[in-house]
Amino acid sequence: MSDIDTTQIDLMHRYWRAANYVSVGQIYLMDNPLLREPLEPEHVKPRLLGHWGTTPGLNFVYVHLNRIIRDRDCAVLYVCGPGHGGPAMVANTYLEGTYSEIYPAIPQNEDGLRRLFKQFSFPGGVPSHVAPETPGSIHEGGELGYALAHAYGAAFDNPDLVVTCVVGDGEAETGPLAAAWHSNKFLNPAVDGAVLPILHLNGYKIANPTLLARMGDGELRSLFVGYGYEPFFVEGHEPATMHRAMADTLDAVFDRIRAIQAEARAGATPSGRPRWPMIVLRSPKGWTGPKEVDGKKVEDFWRSHQVPVSNARGDAAHRKILEHWMRSYGPEELFDAEGRLLPEIAALAPSGERRMGALPQANGGLLKQDLILPDWRSLAVEVARPGETVAESTRVMGAYLRDVLRLNAEARNFRLMGPDETASNRLDAVFETTDRVWMERIEPYDVHLAREGRVMEVLSEHLCQGWLEGYLLTGRHGLFSCYEAFIHIVDSMVNQHAKWLKVSAELPWRKPVASLNYLLTSHVWRQDHNGFSHQDPGFADFVANKKAETVRLYFPPDANTLLWVTEHCLGTFNRINVITAGKQPQAQWLSAAEAEAHCRAGAGIWRWASSDEGEPDVVMACAGDVPTLETLAAVDILRTALPDLAIRVVNVVDLMTLQSRSEHPHGFTDEEFDALFTRDRPVIFAYHGYPYLIHRLTYRRANHANLHVHGFREEGTTTTPFDMTVMNGIDRYHLAQAALRRLPELGERGARLIGELDARLAAHADYIREHGEDMPEIRDWRWPA
Amino acid sequence: MSDIDTTQIDLMHRYWRAANYVSVGQIYLMDNPLLREPLEPEHVKPRLLGHWGTTPGLNFVYVHLNRIIRDRDCAVLYVCGPGHGGPAMVANTYLEGTYSEIYPAIPQNEDGLRRLFKQFSFPGGVPSHVAPETPGSIHEGGELGYALAHAYGAAFDNPDLVVTCVVGDGEAETGPLAAAWHSNKFLNPAVDGAVLPILHLNGYKIANPTLLARMGDGELRSLFVGYGYEPFFVEGHEPATMHRAMADTLDAVFDRIRAIQAEARAGATPSGRPRWPMIVLRSPKGWTGPKEVDGKKVEDFWRSHQVPVSNARGDAAHRKILEHWMRSYGPEELFDAEGRLLPEIAALAPSGERRMGALPQANGGLLKQDLILPDWRSLAVEVARPGETVAESTRVMGAYLRDVLRLNAEARNFRLMGPDETASNRLDAVFETTDRVWMERIEPYDVHLAREGRVMEVLSEHLCQGWLEGYLLTGRHGLFSCYEAFIHIVDSMVNQHAKWLKVSAELPWRKPVASLNYLLTSHVWRQDHNGFSHQDPGFADFVANKKAETVRLYFPPDANTLLWVTEHCLGTFNRINVITAGKQPQAQWLSAAEAEAHCRAGAGIWRWASSDEGEPDVVMACAGDVPTLETLAAVDILRTALPDLAIRVVNVVDLMTLQSRSEHPHGFTDEEFDALFTRDRPVIFAYHGYPYLIHRLTYRRANHANLHVHGFREEGTTTTPFDMTVMNGIDRYHLAQAALRRLPELGERGARLIGELDARLAAHADYIREHGEDMPEIRDWRWPA
Repeated sequence: MSDIDTTQIDLMHRYWRAANYVSVGQIYLMDNPLLREPLEPEHVKPRLLGHWGTTPGLNFVYVHLNRIIRDRDCAVLYVCGPGHGGPAMVANTYLEGTYSEIYPAIPQNEDGLRRLFKQFSFPGGVPSHVAPETPGSIHEGGELGYALAHAYGAAFDNPDLVVTCVVGDGEAETGPLAAAWHSNKFLNPAVDGAVLPILHLNGYKIANPTLLARMGDGELRSLFVGYGYEPFFVEGHEPATMHRAMADTLDAVFDRIRAIQAEARAGATPSGRPRWPMIVLRSPKGWTGPKEVDGKKVEDFWRSHQVPVSNARGDAAHRKILEHWMRSYGPEELFDAEGRLLPEIAALAPSGERRMGALPQANGGLLKQDLILPDWRSLAVEVARPGETVAESTRVMGAYLRDVLRLNAEARNFRLMGPDETASNRLDAVFETTDRVWMERIEPYDVHLAREGRVMEVLSEHLCQGWLEGYLLTGRHGLFSCYEAFIHIVDSMVNQHAKWLKVSAELPWRKPVASLNYLLTSHVWRQDHNGFSHQDPGFADFVANKKAETVRLYFPPDANTLLWVTEHCLGTFNRINVITAGKQPQAQWLSAAEAEAHCRAGAGIWRWASSDEGEPDVVMACAGDVPTLETLAAVDILRTALPDLAIRVVNVVDLMTLQSRSEHPHGFTDEEFDALFTRDRPVIFAYHGYPYLIHRLTYRRANHANLHVHGFREEGTTTTPFDMTVMNGIDRYHLAQAALRRLPELGERGARLIGELDARLAAHADYIREHGEDMPEIRDWRWPA
Repeated sequence: MSDIDTTQIDLMHRYWRAANYVSVGQIYLMDNPLLREPLEPEHVKPRLLGHWGTTPGLNFVYVHLNRIIRDRDCAVLYVCGPGHGGPAMVANTYLEGTYSEIYPAIPQNEDGLRRLFKQFSFPGGVPSHVAPETPGSIHEGGELGYALAHAYGAAFDNPDLVVTCVVGDGEAETGPLAAAWHSNKFLNPAVDGAVLPILHLNGYKIANPTLLARMGDGELRSLFVGYGYEPFFVEGHEPATMHRAMADTLDAVFDRIRAIQAEARAGATPSGRPRWPMIVLRSPKGWTGPKEVDGKKVEDFWRSHQVPVSNARGDAAHRKILEHWMRSYGPEELFDAEGRLLPEIAALAPSGERRMGALPQANGGLLKQDLILPDWRSLAVEVARPGETVAESTRVMGAYLRDVLRLNAEARNFRLMGPDETASNRLDAVFETTDRVWMERIEPYDVHLAREGRVMEVLSEHLCQGWLEGYLLTGRHGLFSCYEAFIHIVDSMVNQHAKWLKVSAELPWRKPVASLNYLLTSHVWRQDHNGFSHQDPGFADFVANKKAETVRLYFPPDANTLLWVTEHCLGTFNRINVITAGKQPQAQWLSAAEAEAHCRAGAGIWRWASSDEGEPDVVMACAGDVPTLETLAAVDILRTALPDLAIRVVNVVDLMTLQSRSEHPHGFTDEEFDALFTRDRPVIFAYHGYPYLIHRLTYRRANHANLHVHGFREEGTTTTPFDMTVMNGIDRYHLAQAALRRLPELGERGARLIGELDARLAAHADYIREHGEDMPEIRDWRWPA
């Protein structure tokens, strides 16, 4: 039997009616918010835009969480998977008071209610989805699939937080969501918070039943037991029964969570993964809405998905249905004369920061503490002269990340994500100070697995990305290292995060969160064990479409520049920083001091490699580690053969310097650009990725017509490192030839050298087909002393 | 007790040893293939590249499938999820004879074996993964996640096919794979083939245990029962026991499949979804390989993932391990003096097209029959004069697709995929002739659900894409309709498919498959119920990076052009066709005849909208339906205010015409391009997507410096249709102003009109904030009669 008395149930029901009322009002009304007059056409918005179907269920959950937060004085974050149910989250944060605190123009009275209704899905107002504008939210939910990964990300290292995550049964069909159930294998009850998934089966998507709703409870139970949860079912449609069932279940579930945590935190050796509870909530789609419209089933069917009464402004019969529906909630029993929620109802909501709309974790910038960053110079590679030292750049970066982990170990606010590739990407120095988090069985021969690891590896880029987003949005820091080609798997998630950041930055009350940092490695030019499927440098193109304030693309050519860039990125906020760097042993070019000066400028002339004295015959430019190597080798060929040729070498670390200052804050002015690339000399530009991106960034520059970009031309397979560059024409020989072809003044000398390089290409081709590796003269080439 | 006698078990074991031997040989050797001499350094490749860990398990499955195919004379397709186990599939197709038939340079003798070994992961040879080069394959498996979706796609409408799909436990952690288990809810035993998933738990990824391998059999069983399967477990490491267990299990499972199919095909009413069998195969990673190397655990651990003995060329002790390992398979007991597999072993494999490497379905172009296409003109919209008729373009396309479905109903070779959006995207005419396929319970009030539907809707873009790829690669046709923004979810899958097509086209024995066709709708400019998260037109940029031979981007501006483009795309092969078109009611511009002429050219001058007589003052160009509308409205404004201005209107349907002919087969020559866009006049180009793409495509053109592109600037929210264009500066007023600013010769007249348009923009802003919809003069604008 339940402890919850009938008064409390009644109170929750009235609160729910109010939330439903305020939700419907947002979708339909622009005036007459409390229906104190009969509903007239002009009270109804001309364009009815929004989603009703999921909304009553979301309200139901919100109201019940309010009760439990008050009862237990706990911190609960509400991740709303069906983010298109925006009216619910706006309604509830309004009713609890946070909305008006953040937006004083929308007060808690009749006028405020009128404005609240009108602004929804209205020009100049608020979007129809849960969005950055919505207090208490870290999740937009327009693109489905990421709610549960966000929820887990928010819970890591937040031991006092319960993250409730409503998963719609539509969203539950997506791949990323299906994988995210397994996140429980990475949540440590001793140091992390809890995630309470609520699978909301309202049965339908836009125009179809959902798979999970039609499976039957037997299979459903098996599925979630198989995922490692203890499922609790709350099913029905009678509000009174449902309130009772939900309240009892939430009590049971919160008890269970506290028991799991208490045991894990009692100091005993952690005993492996607990069976966390989850709730299956089966309630009708469009619950409490019109049962039928125009003779067609609406409530408990997909027709309630968006706007169930579509012509309420133009059609009197429709308007009547709407009015009847809204009055069924009894607004006069819910709001006082001023239009305020009656105090006995309002009292159900928690107060202060316990209100879900006011939870600081949902505005992570409020809690964000800067990382303690080690001085990268302490780890810099000794480079006495260019090209002498050989190092694996990402291995050096791994040492830096190790120190970041050490220095911030107590703060527990930094995690490293990667799909089983931390060691493969040569960041394994981090395992000197931490491990991979792993809550399953650990065998004696396992390596670097631990309950409390801060490295998160799962073979799902979606999970890595979703966890990290949730972690950052709740005020922490992190880095995601990924095989370059496979970062496209999360294109769409990055897109959504960029949109979130863009809008958040426009809201003064949303405080900046730490940047989303990527290391892309095992890149296109060095996929030794793999082939064409692993060769794609196009993420940069994708990211470059997002807002200039948000995106940065870095191509550090060696270890010291990579160190500088890493430190820089970890100190930034509200950005998406993409660092691309190889993991293979490679020549090092710049000392620490040189690296710092070069990276601060973003791009610059490498004097030591150049033979011009201010007036180059040709500019050899490069961005990316392999292109830099090949460019320098090409310059060596040219300078050796043609000592009188004035060659300028330009290296670009920060790709955004190429854009105009007017388009990107890091962009060079035209004067700065021309000072590097000249206004009229041929420029041979070896770029790490697809060549078009360089054209797109530079098409406004004076010298653009002379810019010849070599990059990845979508040719690849399993072959030698140098052969990959040859296949795409970005090798030293093709680069040197490209320069020679643009220097007709060389006459016969140029033509002869071009022919000689053709012969070297042919020799290379013969050699690798015989020996299976690159010619020693290519492999062992070093910049001349 | 099993029917399979010991001789047969022994035979399978010997075949397996041969396959393992040939696999290891590929990874390591470049000479001495049968170890007839002691192993010397020069026999070992200098670069050892490949993946051993998964290979013995893949071989084990292959050999057992060979047995069952012979025993039952059935057609089996082998989808190899762990595609990095390339040596296995190459070894087996070689042993069964198909490899040498396709590649006569690699005969079945010692010399052939030497070549087979050497070419693997070797320059000029074959990639390390299962790839288009691998006979019998439709799946590369380098990027993990799609094996099971491909398998189901192959099985749809292939009633006599059993598609066996090995799912690695690494891949099983990915989102797309996790969702794909639910594909059983869409497979109809009466008309489709069967899919037999084999979850291969070898325990480890690159450097970690896998989640599913550590879960324990109880949870695992629950999980797959929850997914709707009947799991069979085959677990162990002793070959004799394992062969017996696998053979018995496969017999049981194939019996079960046939029973399900027999029941469904007996003519009774289909009774809903059967519980299909699946196998959990738990075997050691790197099975039969070295147990330890350098004192570290290798077999049954992640260290066997790639090359377990890493320095076999340079280090004598390592070479000894390798030699011992290879000799443990007893090559002298497997191959005859010529180097041929002994006939009694070879006899285990099926013959002819029953060999999995020779299965016609795995080279779908062999089976592909052209679609019977209706004449699109029969459905063309009547357009007496431009702008008079209003229609929803995708609704018209829906009627065309309905007719395609009807005409090819008997062939059962066309399916329509979409994530719950077929009706939302207004293609619902297709439901006049078919339904959505649905194997779960069907309620009396459900709409257009049926066991035999040819429309496939699931809220997972990954599944839609994966199914369609599998369907196309086995010789059928289809179209995927998707919300424009969310097609980014499958960026990476499209990438991999494009790579597959590119390589396949280079192999004469791979016959062309039908193109992958997209309709992207509910696009950026008309997201009425949704906001910023639903606004992203960047897929075109992503696709444009792929090979020119493969990709096409179409922006039909109205219904008749959309019809032409649809018919055209459905008749093509080996391409990725992306059609972007809106679903909202819009003015129609071209009659059927005009549409045909315009689309055939790909882009052209709209004379009826232009006021130039060959010498324009300004070119107003457009691509995309909303940009076309706004451009025409801008032209109307300009022509009304400045009747003497010579304006040329250019519309682009096929975006690839903008590229140079040298870069894309559809590209215009410079003469053709200049004839439309001039060499020196200002061009205001309103483009549907991110403006940079147009710059990237046209930067080599003479008039590029005068090209001013307006497009999506990443500004959006829930607002009115016209306001979306204003936010991004692609509305009629901004376009007209852009033209005026580039026409200084207009002097005061231009400046005055610019000011007037500013006033109209301000009036628009005021109006929508008051009324919530666009001004009637904007909404109701029509091209003047």
